[in-house]
Amino acid sequence: MASETEIGAARIRPAIMSGGAGTRLWPLSRAEKPKQFHALVGEETMLGATLARLAPFAPPLLIGSAAHADLLRAAAPDAAAWVLEPMGRNTAPAAAIAAALVAEDDPDALVLLAPADHHISDAGAFRKTVAAAAPAAADGRIVTFGVEPTRPATGYGYIRRGAALGAGNAEAVAAFVEKPDLATAESYLAGGDYLWNAGIFLYRADVMLEELKRHRPDILEGALAALDTATRDGAAIALDPARFADCPAESVDYAVMEKTDRAAVAPAAFPWTDLGAWDAVYDISERDGAGSAISGDVVEIDTANSLLRTDGPLLAAIGVEDMIVVATDDAVFLAPRERAQDVKQVVSILKEKGREEAVRFLKVQSEKDAS
Amino acid sequence: MASETEIGAARIRPAIMSGGAGTRLWPLSRAEKPKQFHALVGEETMLGATLARLAPFAPPLLIGSAAHADLLRAAAPDAAAWVLEPMGRNTAPAAAIAAALVAEDDPDALVLLAPADHHISDAGAFRKTVAAAAPAAADGRIVTFGVEPTRPATGYGYIRRGAALGAGNAEAVAAFVEKPDLATAESYLAGGDYLWNAGIFLYRADVMLEELKRHRPDILEGALAALDTATRDGAAIALDPARFADCPAESVDYAVMEKTDRAAVAPAAFPWTDLGAWDAVYDISERDGAGSAISGDVVEIDTANSLLRTDGPLLAAIGVEDMIVVATDDAVFLAPRERAQDVKQVVSILKEKGREEAVRFLKVQSEKDAS
Repeated sequence: MASETEIGAARIRPAIMSGGAGTRLWPLSRAEKPKQFHALVGEETMLGATLARLAPFAPPLLIGSAAHADLLRAAAPDAAAWVLEPMGRNTAPAAAIAAALVAEDDPDALVLLAPADHHISDAGAFRKTVAAAAPAAADGRIVTFGVEPTRPATGYGYIRRGAALGAGNAEAVAAFVEKPDLATAESYLAGGDYLWNAGIFLYRADVMLEELKRHRPDILEGALAALDTATRDGAAIALDPARFADCPAESVDYAVMEKTDRAAVAPAAFPWTDLGAWDAVYDISERDGAGSAISGDVVEIDTANSLLRTDGPLLAAIGVEDMIVVATDDAVFLAPRERAQDVKQVVSILKEKGREEAVRFLKVQSEKDAS
Repeated sequence: MASETEIGAARIRPAIMSGGAGTRLWPLSRAEKPKQFHALVGEETMLGATLARLAPFAPPLLIGSAAHADLLRAAAPDAAAWVLEPMGRNTAPAAAIAAALVAEDDPDALVLLAPADHHISDAGAFRKTVAAAAPAAADGRIVTFGVEPTRPATGYGYIRRGAALGAGNAEAVAAFVEKPDLATAESYLAGGDYLWNAGIFLYRADVMLEELKRHRPDILEGALAALDTATRDGAAIALDPARFADCPAESVDYAVMEKTDRAAVAPAAFPWTDLGAWDAVYDISERDGAGSAISGDVVEIDTANSLLRTDGPLLAAIGVEDMIVVATDDAVFLAPRERAQDVKQVVSILKEKGREEAVRFLKVQSEKDAS
């Protein structure tokens, strides 16, 4: 694997953001153990797959919820650091903290800021794309990765491509575009000028710190303050709760990328999926001859084009078509595939009803089983 | 209630058959606790509702599986007897044993042999129909009850009505007819000469014993032999396993009713349902404005014309239409309503796979909860 990481002078320091809630993957994903800690496709957890994909680079920083400290440590015992957030503050503060930590001990390295819950089946292609973009990042660009669309997805943001840049495989960003409607997404797909915004960033620590200081000094200040007075225990860095609470919550895209003149996009051709909801899990799962993705203790008759998954009770289905069915020890969810996103309505209802236990906890037995 | 039971000289001695397996109501109904011990409609168990319906008559005999001795005792602590069958032998041996027990201590009474798993919403109408048929039974007829069809059911046997008889509200039986196809069932419904065979019988003990002796002496002999050497412990009568095993298994209809010249049918207009499978449960359940019958811990959005029931995990459904969904602690079943009967295929598959535990047992916790 060494050749993959020979990218000239710059070392790649992965910073993995593992703080997502994964609400739309209820009932499997819960506050106590969200989606990145589950195996959604294949045997590996999302976080485990992300760690494996980035393993040929330098040991990673992990940035996640303090509530998941044990899960983070167990997933990556050799991480360079576990940055524990007392509450969620979106990705810009994480970008700042990763930059500050790398600037401390490895100022010439590049930070690769990546979410823990993306599915990228071709890890080699991913790393090659990162390596090819490194010269642009080393040259002072904040590189975001833009995946060539394979379908008119309406659930992703898009990037309109600009002119090629001098250093590395990177282009200027003509525009960031919000999630489009279907007709617009179809025109993007046909035109070839648009890429999916994958939310993965490659940057020099000093560049990110400068651009945050320029465009969102409040976020930079809040994040660094929480880091300054963090409680450090070996590689565990527990951010200061009061100070981090004061830090504005904002995405890297809004806080920096849409404002800076140093943005670049590296076109990527690796298969990429943001596993946001069960329909996305279905889309990339291995399927049987009738188009169904089946996992766990399932007995099925005449089932077609459905996702049937159980991590708990025996699931017996007859004549089920185009549906999502997900069972855990304490909850069962079912919906037509095209309504998979609406699971968030269920979660809202449960919260309104004071059913926090159904969103938060698995049964005691399951907690013990959890790894 | 006394007036309902004033039916002249004859006392009515209910004999409730509670030995069914209820396979088509899996996963709720299991070998260890079949459907008659569950509340399928409303709050009462099927057996409890049957006991309540028959309570104005004399204390009942209960005939059921030795495996369910505790459930039978708990359901009817004041029963005249609990007849415990070491294995299932269909209804003719039960008819014989009920006749023999009543002949012992109450030879002038009438035996009302009734299954524990029928839903009859108008108990008063049921009892009036029984009382009106009593003179025919006292006169030596074996009376079966024929329910006026309200739809072209293909899941029931039918009785073609013959001439009115002299005593009581009873008619001769022109013919017993097997379950028809839909076209035939529609012609039965239109013609008005056919009744649903409800499988409930009213007879004098001596008459049933005579007719069994005439037409199926092997069954009579086998049943009485098992009763002769039964283990008696108070009101509990555990039939002799070896002898009962030798008794042929046959229904009252085949063994007696289709052969005897003493058969009669009492037309009945009470609402009657054999709760054989989940579609029947749906049909008679109370439904919401969208046509769904919902019970247990269920959150639903845009569900229509479906049965959603959970006795275990939280069940969350979106956009589910015309389906059966039944969840227990250890199994979930889902199918379109029109395929509800096919649950027996699931049970077959589970047995083939050696998954007896999924057919037989609930989890320990649930067993403890069971009443």
